[in-house]
Amino acid sequence: MKDENTSQKRGNTTNIWGGRFDSSTEKATQEINISIAIDQKLYQEDINGSIAYAEELQESGVLSEKQLDNIKNGLEKIRIEIGSGKFQFKEKLEDIHMNIEARLTELIGDDGERLHIGRSRNDQVATDMRLWMRKASLELQKQIILMQKTLLLKAEQHVDWIMPGFTHLQCAQPITFAHHCLAYYEMLDRDLERLKDAEKRCEQSPLGAGALAGSPLPIDRKRLAKRLGFKDAMQNSIDAVSARDFIIEFIANIAILATHLSRLAEDIILWASTPFGFVKLSHKTSTGSSLMPQKQNPDGAELVRAKAARIYGNLITILCVMKALPLAYAKDMQEDKAVMFDSFEQILLAIKALDATLEGLMPNREKMRAALDTGFPEATDLADWFVQKHQMTFRHAHEITGKIVKRAEQCACSKLKELPINEAKKISPLVTQEALEGLTVEKSLERRNALGASAPQKVAQQIEKLKQKQKHRQNGKAE
Amino acid sequence: MKDENTSQKRGNTTNIWGGRFDSSTEKATQEINISIAIDQKLYQEDINGSIAYAEELQESGVLSEKQLDNIKNGLEKIRIEIGSGKFQFKEKLEDIHMNIEARLTELIGDDGERLHIGRSRNDQVATDMRLWMRKASLELQKQIILMQKTLLLKAEQHVDWIMPGFTHLQCAQPITFAHHCLAYYEMLDRDLERLKDAEKRCEQSPLGAGALAGSPLPIDRKRLAKRLGFKDAMQNSIDAVSARDFIIEFIANIAILATHLSRLAEDIILWASTPFGFVKLSHKTSTGSSLMPQKQNPDGAELVRAKAARIYGNLITILCVMKALPLAYAKDMQEDKAVMFDSFEQILLAIKALDATLEGLMPNREKMRAALDTGFPEATDLADWFVQKHQMTFRHAHEITGKIVKRAEQCACSKLKELPINEAKKISPLVTQEALEGLTVEKSLERRNALGASAPQKVAQQIEKLKQKQKHRQNGKAE
Amino acid sequence: MKDENTSQKRGNTTNIWGGRFDSSTEKATQEINISIAIDQKLYQEDINGSIAYAEELQESGVLSEKQLDNIKNGLEKIRIEIGSGKFQFKEKLEDIHMNIEARLTELIGDDGERLHIGRSRNDQVATDMRLWMRKASLELQKQIILMQKTLLLKAEQHVDWIMPGFTHLQCAQPITFAHHCLAYYEMLDRDLERLKDAEKRCEQSPLGAGALAGSPLPIDRKRLAKRLGFKDAMQNSIDAVSARDFIIEFIANIAILATHLSRLAEDIILWASTPFGFVKLSHKTSTGSSLMPQKQNPDGAELVRAKAARIYGNLITILCVMKALPLAYAKDMQEDKAVMFDSFEQILLAIKALDATLEGLMPNREKMRAALDTGFPEATDLADWFVQKHQMTFRHAHEITGKIVKRAEQCACSKLKELPINEAKKISPLVTQEALEGLTVEKSLERRNALGASAPQKVAQQIEKLKQKQKHRQNGKAE
Amino acid sequence: MKDENTSQKRGNTTNIWGGRFDSSTEKATQEINISIAIDQKLYQEDINGSIAYAEELQESGVLSEKQLDNIKNGLEKIRIEIGSGKFQFKEKLEDIHMNIEARLTELIGDDGERLHIGRSRNDQVATDMRLWMRKASLELQKQIILMQKTLLLKAEQHVDWIMPGFTHLQCAQPITFAHHCLAYYEMLDRDLERLKDAEKRCEQSPLGAGALAGSPLPIDRKRLAKRLGFKDAMQNSIDAVSARDFIIEFIANIAILATHLSRLAEDIILWASTPFGFVKLSHKTSTGSSLMPQKQNPDGAELVRAKAARIYGNLITILCVMKALPLAYAKDMQEDKAVMFDSFEQILLAIKALDATLEGLMPNREKMRAALDTGFPEATDLADWFVQKHQMTFRHAHEITGKIVKRAEQCACSKLKELPINEAKKISPLVTQEALEGLTVEKSLERRNALGASAPQKVAQQIEKLKQKQKHRQNGKAE
Repeated sequence: MKDENTSQKRGNTTNIWGGRFDSSTEKATQEINISIAIDQKLYQEDINGSIAYAEELQESGVLSEKQLDNIKNGLEKIRIEIGSGKFQFKEKLEDIHMNIEARLTELIGDDGERLHIGRSRNDQVATDMRLWMRKASLELQKQIILMQKTLLLKAEQHVDWIMPGFTHLQCAQPITFAHHCLAYYEMLDRDLERLKDAEKRCEQSPLGAGALAGSPLPIDRKRLAKRLGFKDAMQNSIDAVSARDFIIEFIANIAILATHLSRLAEDIILWASTPFGFVKLSHKTSTGSSLMPQKQNPDGAELVRAKAARIYGNLITILCVMKALPLAYAKDMQEDKAVMFDSFEQILLAIKALDATLEGLMPNREKMRAALDTGFPEATDLADWFVQKHQMTFRHAHEITGKIVKRAEQCACSKLKELPINEAKKISPLVTQEALEGLTVEKSLERRNALGASAPQKVAQQIEKLKQKQKHRQNGKAE
Repeated sequence: MKDENTSQKRGNTTNIWGGRFDSSTEKATQEINISIAIDQKLYQEDINGSIAYAEELQESGVLSEKQLDNIKNGLEKIRIEIGSGKFQFKEKLEDIHMNIEARLTELIGDDGERLHIGRSRNDQVATDMRLWMRKASLELQKQIILMQKTLLLKAEQHVDWIMPGFTHLQCAQPITFAHHCLAYYEMLDRDLERLKDAEKRCEQSPLGAGALAGSPLPIDRKRLAKRLGFKDAMQNSIDAVSARDFIIEFIANIAILATHLSRLAEDIILWASTPFGFVKLSHKTSTGSSLMPQKQNPDGAELVRAKAARIYGNLITILCVMKALPLAYAKDMQEDKAVMFDSFEQILLAIKALDATLEGLMPNREKMRAALDTGFPEATDLADWFVQKHQMTFRHAHEITGKIVKRAEQCACSKLKELPINEAKKISPLVTQEALEGLTVEKSLERRNALGASAPQKVAQQIEKLKQKQKHRQNGKAE
Repeated sequence: MKDENTSQKRGNTTNIWGGRFDSSTEKATQEINISIAIDQKLYQEDINGSIAYAEELQESGVLSEKQLDNIKNGLEKIRIEIGSGKFQFKEKLEDIHMNIEARLTELIGDDGERLHIGRSRNDQVATDMRLWMRKASLELQKQIILMQKTLLLKAEQHVDWIMPGFTHLQCAQPITFAHHCLAYYEMLDRDLERLKDAEKRCEQSPLGAGALAGSPLPIDRKRLAKRLGFKDAMQNSIDAVSARDFIIEFIANIAILATHLSRLAEDIILWASTPFGFVKLSHKTSTGSSLMPQKQNPDGAELVRAKAARIYGNLITILCVMKALPLAYAKDMQEDKAVMFDSFEQILLAIKALDATLEGLMPNREKMRAALDTGFPEATDLADWFVQKHQMTFRHAHEITGKIVKRAEQCACSKLKELPINEAKKISPLVTQEALEGLTVEKSLERRNALGASAPQKVAQQIEKLKQKQKHRQNGKAE
Repeated sequence: MKDENTSQKRGNTTNIWGGRFDSSTEKATQEINISIAIDQKLYQEDINGSIAYAEELQESGVLSEKQLDNIKNGLEKIRIEIGSGKFQFKEKLEDIHMNIEARLTELIGDDGERLHIGRSRNDQVATDMRLWMRKASLELQKQIILMQKTLLLKAEQHVDWIMPGFTHLQCAQPITFAHHCLAYYEMLDRDLERLKDAEKRCEQSPLGAGALAGSPLPIDRKRLAKRLGFKDAMQNSIDAVSARDFIIEFIANIAILATHLSRLAEDIILWASTPFGFVKLSHKTSTGSSLMPQKQNPDGAELVRAKAARIYGNLITILCVMKALPLAYAKDMQEDKAVMFDSFEQILLAIKALDATLEGLMPNREKMRAALDTGFPEATDLADWFVQKHQMTFRHAHEITGKIVKRAEQCACSKLKELPINEAKKISPLVTQEALEGLTVEKSLERRNALGASAPQKVAQQIEKLKQKQKHRQNGKAE
């Protein structure tokens, strides 16, 4: 004795979950509930997850081999349909899971309706998202490494191109273009590490947790996890369907990376500004004005800054969605996907655009060097001279030097060595013509040769070291 | 003597601003720069703005009447093309302004190339956005008023349906379902006011500010502003192209409204929860589970909560985009539109979904009333009795009552009047059987009849007053 | 018959609300609960609120005249004690309300315990905060007006000091220092309006709403409201204790103001940077380096930028605190005060520091003018020349001009008029030597004289108009 | 020949960096610049850093042994002065570094002025903050482990206490109190991992990077780093003074932890609410009302929710501070400390308060069990019965069961087994009396015994496993 199956009738007309409901859904309720426009990006992961689940059901005796084959064939057909753009997503079916399940039943009949036993969309989507994120994280890491190579290349090409190092956007001390590039290399290295560390929180599979209480089927969740490339199964079924910290961590890491990119973008915008003139942008990575024919604007770099803002917004959204949500799953969590996808897509675009901008950057050696002729970047070296030559305390030397700078400004000198020696001696009788004349930007740079400092020979060594590291990476060796 | 015009050749192959550029734009730079997928929503405003600008150019002698007619006809054709979905947006042309201008030239020839004189996309987009926002704000205000009507209706239907008023989610004092609904009515009233006040910051037109320095043409910017329904022109051209505070204010107002909606959503989720059982949701505004056949979930209300989070993210994004941007226009600002549109669309969806949920809500009079049988909501009235009957100080009365509550709990009584009088007298010899028996939820409610309090007759008066106010609104009278 | 009063005993040993509790509070619970370090800032408002409430209790027959006098005298003593720093705040008493009530009872005996009847800390604190905010808003408005005066003064002093107007931080078109200052004047004017509009949402008093259900006493809430300077009483008791939109709106308005200040701060930092050199900072509003003796850093302006970030954080905090809080009061709301106070204090400090920085700013006329010698800001005028002289379409003129700019760059010319005419004619035979020579920054500036544009005579008129407006303000006249 | 040293005169009257300045600092500029109220928390780290730096200066020949001894003695005296509250912090001296240096010179004379050579406050504060954070992170990790123990204890005590598992706050399936506790254990475990991973980004020392360009002294930065417990020195001096990603990561990790705590707080607030009644709070970890004598409020848990909001605000602040800051150091960064300290202090307070609340929680076994008598949590099991008994497809079984639930509701049954069998058979002739009677909550729970599921025996195993893990931790063994 068997009820007639209603799958055919149901199809497009009622909701899959709608047995107990006696009216169709109100328009705005349905509209706010639909997520298919967003979550269809998970189709590969959803199909992979379903295949692994079906295999596990078969291995544990819930499905027959024939049923499994049927399901797998159906799912692979759907994969092709979606991949080729032929699949018709239906809003009525709410999300990617229901769209695929409904199509599967259309394609293979009743066996399609057997797949969801013991599974809920709660553990299903949590699995899909983790699978997606691990793929996304690897792609992002690849882009970071590409950008690091560009930084390394730019550093190598400009190892002794002197430029002002700024603090408070005031000329502070001479550095090189190379040294500046390597600072960003270091930041990106930490960004890379963070992404790798976060992977650890994505290596346990939620599949088999059901709605929240765990599976009543004789499945082996650990084996199921390994089918999908996870290292283990999550240890608590409620946590498995409720946890979204892996998304917050991912977006937080992206937000930090975006912050780093925004700083480089800012540097480039400043360097390319008319008063700085430190660099020219390539025509390929700048754009014009609809009104002003002369303009060449660093739009890419500006938008990189703006994308950081957008990603911060996404981070706040996911935190606020999750705040104070009682266990276990709540529908609020549906908003997690829009920000996860958007953060990834925006950062990928930002890093590519900035990498291209950097690659096309043409530093102007003369203008960068000339910018050191104002602002007295040699002053610290004079203070150091007092300390070394006269065993003066540093604080005293600092004060005297400050006064010499003030006098030089009053005398309209742009460098300390232009100050007449008798004027300098009014401040301190210790100072000599030779001391003042020894104050050159080039010497100042060379003096700074402790580990990590800006002396060109140190920077060259660091470049060499990092290039070796890159090579090891390419050879797939552990770092 | 006249150069041959290049408009035909240019068309799809080079950027409109590309005269000085000698190479085409790099892929990621172009991709990050394109905004047409977002800003095409401004097409009506962009066309209206261009028509008004062309009219002003003609009136001030820059364009001939024939040129103006040509331009207007072309723009109206484009309006129809876009409206009917036949317009082909080209990413190459970056944004809505360039797409329309390029198509205009295709349609009407050289006159299309005359329109942009003295105008920049900077003042153009600033105008479009203000026009759009004024329209959007009115639509949102309309929805708020509809929701206020639903609240009023629900209040009217349940004017003496007693329920627990909670503080700290602990039963505090009896209120009515109507009184609770009217609290939200008040919040929405302030949201309405805020939206209206913000309109004032959108009534001045930026058009004619050019790129940033103002127009060199003999146009009358005030007259131009009035053509578009503005009250005046903005008084400073740099401000006109740089200001985005009107967007921040709009999103901040939406964020506050979203906060209010999220609180009502939370109330509904709690009321509909299995342990509360205060209300049933309509089948039309709730959804089921893919695994658990019995579930009827308040998805709409949950998503309203999540939309608040999303709007907070948008608010942070626009603030962070604008922070520390030097004057005047920078490309970062392009990110303003995505969050402006999204905040409006999400709040509109949220308010509609919550309004429908509220409309379908079926309070359960018995369960709400029964919830007052635990938690001793009558305790404050006993303290008041001590004060009034025995001139006791309130603080003293509070303490004694607290001890009586403790004793009642120890004796497993769920109401104070169930406490044996001899037990009560051990705490205070003043207390009488009559006093305890007089402590009913209904009396407690009736006692609270100061302005704005929960006594049903007060609430009924307030409903009447608000209904009159609504009528005035519908008659278009000033409030 | 009368119980002995326990007020003496209670004092410092038990919580005022502790009648039903049989153990003292755990350390961390107490610590997280204490707010006195923060909310003591409300002491004036709390005392004013209590006096008005006591007066209303007396007028409606709840207190005798003698009791009222007693209470008022006690409260005025406490006001003096706190004002002079002699009051001993006790953490045990949690908050400002309980500290004052406990001290009042110490000072005047039992009458102090009579004050709280019908009142809850819920309506009390909601009243205090509204009173505080109205005061704070006025103080902030005063500071904005002061800063507008500085902007006006700076504009007046530099009405024809030419500087580059930037878009995308690229030299765009000439403007004046005055015109730039007036852009900020306009922003601040809207900030002022927003603060005034927000006052409307603070003109209704929550006092008398009790815990949430309204007052059982025969008080006149409207009369009580007017005693405290409110226009009316809030119309719904649940809303009265639950609403915090007035705080969100206040902080959102401050966040927008902070954004405007951050932009001016950024402008100043750029102008003062070594490569720009557009301005010198006063020694009074800049600071030095502990290591580099030459440094003069724009710390104040930098911190103004950072304060914007801090205020954004506060805005997110208050939004997230309120999101999805069920009605009515919940303890989460206690976090509202820290962000309200901090936002106000930080913005006040920021506006003062930036005002001082602006006041001390010394523009360098030569350097600003010289910055227009690069970047071809005269290009738009050449395009306009083609349009006007040869009826060329603007788009065509733009393209030709773009190519002339490119040629000029290739020829290492920094101005279009330096380009040999035969080179220019290769691009367009229409161009003449006279046309190129006519392209000066000064003429370009003068040409832009539409309403709101940068022509000095227009800016001068605008300054005059704004000065009149300021005078009216000082005379207390309506604007 | 030697200038007279000015250290004595300078002391309190001029800024240490003030040689070139000819006027004292304006009030608001000074006020916004002062950080001593905040950064004095770094005094231990600042002194440790200075001692290590002095030792390195001596070892590399810059200081004599006598000078080093002098400096170390002075610094240790200052440590005692600050620790005992006797140190007089001076706002004039801006920050902790200058306060300590000035006092050192007061105490030991000129040698105090020798310490700062080659060092800047830029590398100094970056070092202090990393040292502080590593200490703070360890303290936080300790608290997390303590809370995990409480969770484990609670789980052990209630291993078979059945309660409803909720999704969408609707009764979904039976779980146990223990299983619910272990979900939070897992979240905290990931929080712990994140904090540990973040330590890796704090193990490189910035000291010796100077202002930004690196040190001109013959110091060994790696050796210096190891003196302070770092593993290495940072590899790029510009990055060393500019990087704040370690703070963002720290606060982001705290924000995630706070999110987890806020969810448990929400659960507890719901459970303790009058309608749920699942738990009683200890009197020690709840508080009363000033007006309503009966109230026992979960203030601690509510404030934990609010602290999450506060920490999100801090996260946004630090991100916004750092966004688009050009290299290297800018004063904006001074705002990093307030949010770093506050986030740590608030989370520490929150976790302690919540731990205490949890420890004092008294679940009510009867009420939790009774809550499963409504909401039909047994429905999934009926669907599974159809699948297993009749090889029905799951989707079909789901639909039939949904209809049976609807019929049961219509018949006012609160459990499926109460539905008359003939009513059930109208839906599906397959269903039997036995099937319906077999649907008990207890059986439903037992059935779910896959890995991580809620069956009590599984949960008991998991508890045992975690207890072993805790023991290993205590024994200091690697996990």
